[in-house]
Amino acid sequence: MSLQNDLILRAAKGEKVERTPVWLMRQAGRILKEYRDVREKLSGFKELVETPELAAEVTIQPVDILGVDAAIIFSDILVIPEAMGLTYQMLENKGPWFEKTIKSQADIDQLIIPNPYEKLAYTLDAIKITKKELNGRVPVIGFAGAPWTIFSYMIEGSGSKTFSKAKKMLYTEPAMSHVLLDKITQSTILYLKAQVASGADMVQVFDSWAGILSPAQYQEFSLKYISQICDAIPEVPVTVFAKGAFFAREEMGKLKCNTIGLDWNMDIAESRKLIGANKTLQGNLDPCALYGSFAEIKKQTNVMLDQFKGSRHIANLGHGLYPDTNPDAVRCFIESVKEYKSVLA
Amino acid sequence: MSLQNDLILRAAKGEKVERTPVWLMRQAGRILKEYRDVREKLSGFKELVETPELAAEVTIQPVDILGVDAAIIFSDILVIPEAMGLTYQMLENKGPWFEKTIKSQADIDQLIIPNPYEKLAYTLDAIKITKKELNGRVPVIGFAGAPWTIFSYMIEGSGSKTFSKAKKMLYTEPAMSHVLLDKITQSTILYLKAQVASGADMVQVFDSWAGILSPAQYQEFSLKYISQICDAIPEVPVTVFAKGAFFAREEMGKLKCNTIGLDWNMDIAESRKLIGANKTLQGNLDPCALYGSFAEIKKQTNVMLDQFKGSRHIANLGHGLYPDTNPDAVRCFIESVKEYKSVLA
Repeated sequence: MSLQNDLILRAAKGEKVERTPVWLMRQAGRILKEYRDVREKLSGFKELVETPELAAEVTIQPVDILGVDAAIIFSDILVIPEAMGLTYQMLENKGPWFEKTIKSQADIDQLIIPNPYEKLAYTLDAIKITKKELNGRVPVIGFAGAPWTIFSYMIEGSGSKTFSKAKKMLYTEPAMSHVLLDKITQSTILYLKAQVASGADMVQVFDSWAGILSPAQYQEFSLKYISQICDAIPEVPVTVFAKGAFFAREEMGKLKCNTIGLDWNMDIAESRKLIGANKTLQGNLDPCALYGSFAEIKKQTNVMLDQFKGSRHIANLGHGLYPDTNPDAVRCFIESVKEYKSVLA
Repeated sequence: MSLQNDLILRAAKGEKVERTPVWLMRQAGRILKEYRDVREKLSGFKELVETPELAAEVTIQPVDILGVDAAIIFSDILVIPEAMGLTYQMLENKGPWFEKTIKSQADIDQLIIPNPYEKLAYTLDAIKITKKELNGRVPVIGFAGAPWTIFSYMIEGSGSKTFSKAKKMLYTEPAMSHVLLDKITQSTILYLKAQVASGADMVQVFDSWAGILSPAQYQEFSLKYISQICDAIPEVPVTVFAKGAFFAREEMGKLKCNTIGLDWNMDIAESRKLIGANKTLQGNLDPCALYGSFAEIKKQTNVMLDQFKGSRHIANLGHGLYPDTNPDAVRCFIESVKEYKSVLA
């Protein structure tokens, strides 16, 4: 099925686009009443992730309601540790929590490299349904967590301010850490390949905890594995978003991926210089800018677009949308991006 | 009283030193049994902060027990919001919590610019006692939070993952934000001047939440006020530690301060290039490196020292010491710094 709007795919590949494509990380979620209506009928977040029809429904909502140029499949990066053998719970207002964590080589040995068609069929089915229901309106983005971020959750068992347990393992058990990272990487590659086979038009790798590693550690324990993932997915454009990894931008420019996500701390001109001209950059409005007046949102969006002008760009926030953001503010951001073209013309 | 060990003051001023001086952020605290012994007799953290004799005792402990080249007064950055009118509690395992937060101009109007000799006499007295008891062995470091970090706590009422309430105020009420930041800055200057008058040999400004602002916002809402503080304290060397403000290093090189703290994410050579040769750099071993074996700690410390070699440096971690660190690991770090000199000789 041919896509009616393939702006984001062309932008990712560095092809000519009529205007900058736009989507938002966490666009499917709590900011939309329509999402909350679906969600409140269910036992919890995980039921939504694991029910393909409903996951597809909330995936498509922001396309209909907000007018974004891509749908990102509604899921969670923690489906991978769960499929590998560590069940998680999503605690209301507290975030994820794992009953069992990884403490030893024996724990790692017990983890499996899951067949995604068995263990993660719910996400693959959700992608298939989404593709069918979107009927070519916009592309579908698949995703997974970066191995280092998944590793962190597996060791810590939850979010953390310092991730000192996970980092401690890197310092005290580097060899064991690599075994675990390798196992996560293999699982992630199989999962992303299955997402592509199920219809994902592009995929994004989220390294949410990139920013807590030192530059040397990031190279050894994260970028190495992200690089393996990029190499393994030649079929569709790959985006790497490593939150806080400002120190690795030059190295990230060498990854076999199409797009690098920038967070709002990263200066755009400097990032372009470090990453080079051969990557599309994605981002990077501060999600808190959407708390401002519509005039201010438009102004901030234009300031951002001006800085990206003339180079490969996909408009987005520099982080996921915060749940208390007004949907009209999100629409204002999206419209500002779409109207920017006419300013150029 | 002349100092027997003024290495850190000379290093801060860019004068010749026989070896690199070393201290650790949060060196006075839970890692020491001697600290926990003092602490457990008290009702809580705040009683320790507000009892000058005991605050002085725990301030001096790491000089005796660990052999650091400076004592940093035991206190908290939140004494300033409290003195201005917002009482805080320190909740065990949860961190600070303010019952009342700042929501409006009326709330800001109610805040006072406290006379530190009245409202913060406990810290000033602690400095005087520490100076007397140290009897010139090492210098005493005073400190305060940067206005932006204090502002964040005043708005959020506690720590936060995103500090989106505080950032929201910057976007929605920039003029009001500046009024509050100005009031905090005035209070902080008076407080630091009083610390110096009470005997502090140098002072450090901690901008713990620097890293959550965009570069443009950091310039407008944080660096501007840090700059005012630096200008107002010509009497002693000033150190600015802005955690996560990698994007502001070039601007920070222009501050009227002697030393810039680096966190462990910041590449040393790049930081030197951005900040320039006329500042002493402080840092920046990853606090988690102290979880490694002694051989590994020594190696990592030497790798760090090699990178600073030949330029102005005060050895420290890139963040505060984590409470579960083994004191022997800390000693190993300190000894590694002290022994490094002989390698050079």
